[in-house]
Amino acid sequence: MGNCCERLGPQKNTYVRVSLPAVCFVWQIAMIILFGVFIRYDKESDAHWAEYKVKNNLTDKDNDFYFRYPSFQDVHVMIFVGFGFLMTFLKRYSYGGVGFNFLIASFGLQWALLMQGWFHSLDLTTGKISIGIESLINADFCCAGSLIAFGALLGKVSPVQLMVVTLFGVTLFAVEEYIILDLLHCRDAGGSMVIHCFGGYYGLAISWVLYRPNLHQSKRLHGSIYHSDLFAMIGTLFLWMFWPSFNSAITDHGDGQHRAVINTYIALASSVLTAFAISSMSQKRGKVDMVHIQNATLAGAVAMGTAAEFMITPYGSLIVGFCMGIISTFGYLFVTPFLEKTLKLQDTCGVHNLHAVPGMLGGFIGAIVAATATEEVYSKEGLINTFDKEGKYANRDMGTQGGFQAAGTCVSIAFGLIGGAIVGFILKFPIWGDPADDHCFDDEAYWELPEEEEETLPPVLEYNNHMIHKGQDITESSFSVDQS
Amino acid sequence: MGNCCERLGPQKNTYVRVSLPAVCFVWQIAMIILFGVFIRYDKESDAHWAEYKVKNNLTDKDNDFYFRYPSFQDVHVMIFVGFGFLMTFLKRYSYGGVGFNFLIASFGLQWALLMQGWFHSLDLTTGKISIGIESLINADFCCAGSLIAFGALLGKVSPVQLMVVTLFGVTLFAVEEYIILDLLHCRDAGGSMVIHCFGGYYGLAISWVLYRPNLHQSKRLHGSIYHSDLFAMIGTLFLWMFWPSFNSAITDHGDGQHRAVINTYIALASSVLTAFAISSMSQKRGKVDMVHIQNATLAGAVAMGTAAEFMITPYGSLIVGFCMGIISTFGYLFVTPFLEKTLKLQDTCGVHNLHAVPGMLGGFIGAIVAATATEEVYSKEGLINTFDKEGKYANRDMGTQGGFQAAGTCVSIAFGLIGGAIVGFILKFPIWGDPADDHCFDDEAYWELPEEEEETLPPVLEYNNHMIHKGQDITESSFSVDQS
Amino acid sequence: MGNCCERLGPQKNTYVRVSLPAVCFVWQIAMIILFGVFIRYDKESDAHWAEYKVKNNLTDKDNDFYFRYPSFQDVHVMIFVGFGFLMTFLKRYSYGGVGFNFLIASFGLQWALLMQGWFHSLDLTTGKISIGIESLINADFCCAGSLIAFGALLGKVSPVQLMVVTLFGVTLFAVEEYIILDLLHCRDAGGSMVIHCFGGYYGLAISWVLYRPNLHQSKRLHGSIYHSDLFAMIGTLFLWMFWPSFNSAITDHGDGQHRAVINTYIALASSVLTAFAISSMSQKRGKVDMVHIQNATLAGAVAMGTAAEFMITPYGSLIVGFCMGIISTFGYLFVTPFLEKTLKLQDTCGVHNLHAVPGMLGGFIGAIVAATATEEVYSKEGLINTFDKEGKYANRDMGTQGGFQAAGTCVSIAFGLIGGAIVGFILKFPIWGDPADDHCFDDEAYWELPEEEEETLPPVLEYNNHMIHKGQDITESSFSVDQS
Repeated sequence: MGNCCERLGPQKNTYVRVSLPAVCFVWQIAMIILFGVFIRYDKESDAHWAEYKVKNNLTDKDNDFYFRYPSFQDVHVMIFVGFGFLMTFLKRYSYGGVGFNFLIASFGLQWALLMQGWFHSLDLTTGKISIGIESLINADFCCAGSLIAFGALLGKVSPVQLMVVTLFGVTLFAVEEYIILDLLHCRDAGGSMVIHCFGGYYGLAISWVLYRPNLHQSKRLHGSIYHSDLFAMIGTLFLWMFWPSFNSAITDHGDGQHRAVINTYIALASSVLTAFAISSMSQKRGKVDMVHIQNATLAGAVAMGTAAEFMITPYGSLIVGFCMGIISTFGYLFVTPFLEKTLKLQDTCGVHNLHAVPGMLGGFIGAIVAATATEEVYSKEGLINTFDKEGKYANRDMGTQGGFQAAGTCVSIAFGLIGGAIVGFILKFPIWGDPADDHCFDDEAYWELPEEEEETLPPVLEYNNHMIHKGQDITESSFSVDQS
Repeated sequence: MGNCCERLGPQKNTYVRVSLPAVCFVWQIAMIILFGVFIRYDKESDAHWAEYKVKNNLTDKDNDFYFRYPSFQDVHVMIFVGFGFLMTFLKRYSYGGVGFNFLIASFGLQWALLMQGWFHSLDLTTGKISIGIESLINADFCCAGSLIAFGALLGKVSPVQLMVVTLFGVTLFAVEEYIILDLLHCRDAGGSMVIHCFGGYYGLAISWVLYRPNLHQSKRLHGSIYHSDLFAMIGTLFLWMFWPSFNSAITDHGDGQHRAVINTYIALASSVLTAFAISSMSQKRGKVDMVHIQNATLAGAVAMGTAAEFMITPYGSLIVGFCMGIISTFGYLFVTPFLEKTLKLQDTCGVHNLHAVPGMLGGFIGAIVAATATEEVYSKEGLINTFDKEGKYANRDMGTQGGFQAAGTCVSIAFGLIGGAIVGFILKFPIWGDPADDHCFDDEAYWELPEEEEETLPPVLEYNNHMIHKGQDITESSFSVDQS
Repeated sequence: MGNCCERLGPQKNTYVRVSLPAVCFVWQIAMIILFGVFIRYDKESDAHWAEYKVKNNLTDKDNDFYFRYPSFQDVHVMIFVGFGFLMTFLKRYSYGGVGFNFLIASFGLQWALLMQGWFHSLDLTTGKISIGIESLINADFCCAGSLIAFGALLGKVSPVQLMVVTLFGVTLFAVEEYIILDLLHCRDAGGSMVIHCFGGYYGLAISWVLYRPNLHQSKRLHGSIYHSDLFAMIGTLFLWMFWPSFNSAITDHGDGQHRAVINTYIALASSVLTAFAISSMSQKRGKVDMVHIQNATLAGAVAMGTAAEFMITPYGSLIVGFCMGIISTFGYLFVTPFLEKTLKLQDTCGVHNLHAVPGMLGGFIGAIVAATATEEVYSKEGLINTFDKEGKYANRDMGTQGGFQAAGTCVSIAFGLIGGAIVGFILKFPIWGDPADDHCFDDEAYWELPEEEEETLPPVLEYNNHMIHKGQDITESSFSVDQS
């Protein structure tokens, strides 16, 4: 069958039977060894807690587990179902979307426990890293940066390349996070800067280096079908619903966590309305576009990542969501096509509009809100608490804090762009099994597909033998062939 | 293709390119202004908490956030994924089901924060409304009323009309809730009365006014396909699983919340068995109908909305679930067709059987359980606690309380019917862009659909041009047939 | 159409119009009566809590509800969405997968509350069972055993048979659990032994007795299609994400629960990498198989069910996940086909590889970790706490404990195999309405399917009128057109 040859022919470079298992095994074994050397339970998850709690006059119910775990599970759902299903929108790359997301996040979170541990919780006397529930949340966060980058690359790279993207992505993340949060002493609870801005530009830079001039050869697969868009809505909604948990998961307990939820919740609601509005305005008949609903509705939460725990006020959150819904939808309408034409930048999921720009703006919004914070609004204790004004940072005035927040945003952009460019060049080596230009966005390359592809391949052909005849008289043109 | 003309022709009245963006923008801007004037953080989410907690000898972990947030997230999932995906069951209106649900809930929750704030938590000295996590739960609840109404209207109205339904729905909700909970001092933790009974009758009344005698012209689209029913099951299951959180989310802390979960959990389990039983009995060969499984399995929880926090006893909950599974399934089998034929009432999702009737019955069940409550069963403190017998209500005897509960149910029905009728007449103005009778239940009207509709349109035609030819030469055998 | 006759003909034995409603009604009424006689609220969910808490100097926020409910909801999602959607992978049995799972879990949890209550929390003075949030978690766990068995039987049995499987499954579960946890005093927080090992062998034994030599007649339906595999991924991911809650839901509060989460989380991550690796290695071109990704990625958590709360160390968890991903994927590749050919054992979902073997290994891993536990690692208090070394077990040394753990695993296997064989013979009576060999894996047998089966039946036929002409020549008339 011609159709068969067409499928097998140009795939020869997608052979990953050696490289994919090799990467998975070697890196997983490395993880086991490094975990053996470095990773231990922290005091709240170690069996010694039974004695620790008595000594410190605590009960089991004071274990921080109970105050972080619900948020952790929401974040976990966002990483695996949220990001995973959001990337199922392509008609023939849904397995790749959800499956490779699953693979790289599972690797990424292990590597993140190590990288973040070395930078943040390495006990220098024992040489050990202690992990607890907060480490798990941070590990999930750390993966998110690489998953965002995956969005820009969706359908154009091999799973082995994605593993490389994740290895470097997590490494770069841990370094820039250390610089921004520890050295610059920025606040970034929901990661506008460290997660979204970094992840977005990281993915864009890789994609720019990997530019494929002949990607139009895969155009037939570069779109959605009715049900793939519905699967993507599962991802969108779980991201949307649980984003208040994302932005609040690692804030200070108490009012900070409470406020971050409220601010994110209402910013998101506001984004939905403006995304619908711009989407409808942009079409002749006022029809809404699923691409915008799946993505731009989330932009408000991305931009609240830094400011959510601040006293940005409820109406301030609404305004942020309002603007982001507009900016992000405009991005999908005009900027993505522009980037592709002019800058030779192919961005499959439009992470530029959902993560890079809203993340960057979120960093600057956070800087402004921080710079204008006053004791009157926060109370004396509240200001210290919210901005962690302790130790050598006790006397940093709020304007300076705002300046550092802005500087942090620039650091994350720089890390994303430079790191991404380097990783992009590494991925250009012809050893990674990436698909040819005419086989992008095709699960056929890396997945065993069900034999009966009744849904998307011409069903008449495949259904059963006596069907094939009828296919022919459906259009007039068939006549000529009949005659041949 | 004729099919193309047929699609474009009668759509002219679904033009929403001006009205939808206008409504979204204007109302969202109004929200920003009103939030600016009225909405502030409450004491547990304001940065002053840092000082408040010290003064009151509290710790951050006493913040009510930690005792409401897991329930909030479950409710949030019910509103957006539960209701949203439940409404994807139509073969060609799944975008509208999940998408418009997303839009109107996002608007509704903002408006609900204001409306409920004005009625329940307006500080008369400062003129401000304080919001915290409980406000967010209540806002989600308040939306639910309008989303139920959406169920009755599904596929027959424009998104602009749905925004109007939500605007008035939330407004009416806040008023009837104020009357029922505050003036009549009823208990209604899970909203049998204020949410389901009101929402159901509100939607039915609107649908009755908007009766379309020629709706049969859309009959081809008024049904499900295999995968659309599976998407709907996502909605059903998330509603079913999280309904214990719904009924317990705003009850008193402690035993009330604990008991509401248990009662709802077992009532739901019981509904599933009787829904399956009646569904199977109603078909010649005992086959089960997905419509019943998707809906009637939930009826037990609706009817437990009021009584869940009372001492209805575990077997009492089982009996409620048992009866509701039967009543609701019978409703889908006989009452919905009867209403359509006799009362000219078109109810797309059958909200009559899932919300209106179980909600009303739930109100009366609550009245009976309240009227029969005794100190023996509840303990003295328990009775005061459960029925909030404080202040001027301290001496209201339980029989009277039962009477008020029943009166509250009647109030919610009246608000639903009268409010719905008025809103229905407003929606009859020919300015809202609603679809013609032969284009109901069709996403084509309001959504940009993927160009290749491989799944439901004749795939051979649309796949791509050169496919059709190949189709023919794919197997050799076609030749022989051509010749025959 | 011949296709029509083919569908109706051999179904005559799938008539369940009497038996299914009868079973549902009678058993549900029995539940109501038994609940009425036995089940009461426990002290934390009874209204007397209002007085109890004052007496015991507690606050509402000390109610155990707040420390179990988030885990409960995660487990609940696993049971209904996780197991349910995991079983939608068959192209034409998705309704049965998710729908019958819903039915039998809803019955099973009620029966489990009773059975587990009689064995574990029956107050002998009052003759009552007290239930609270922990009982609900245990009831969900108890269902899981029968749902695992369902996986082996998927598509080959009637819903009435499934109810019987659940009735006996829950009964056997409660007995073996009592023996293992109470008499042998084993620890098994996540149920490697009592849930997975038992459930797996129970299902395999039933399936072995019900062997169908002519099952190949249903071969056309025994596989997935593109979108059914995506639905199954919803199940996989919710199981995967929430398994840390499953393994920790009923552990001791404090460090045990905290540690169980961490261990399960990292074991799962490790399984994903090795499942991908082996899956890719097993195919000529290195393509990954969805069957492995949907199932083997979970095996690490099954095997951590017993040891998760122990001090197995983070790298120990990684090693368990590493090995289980390999073993489970090999199982799908080689053992399932071998079992079918050699042992005449048909295992639709491969529960052998996901539950039986990893569960059994998990039991032995737990035994080893228990046997090697020392006071040095756990602290004195921690050891007592973790292994519940109280009362007559205070002096049991750890080696003995390990021996008992291993014995417990054997008990669960024995209960599964023997119980399953007996239930299998009961199910062989020709009264249960099970499908003929050529109608297995077909929702047509027990579900009203949408009339327009546009997706899997020839779509050209059904779409609209002028299409039908072509459809017509499919049968007899096709001749004339071919000739034209």
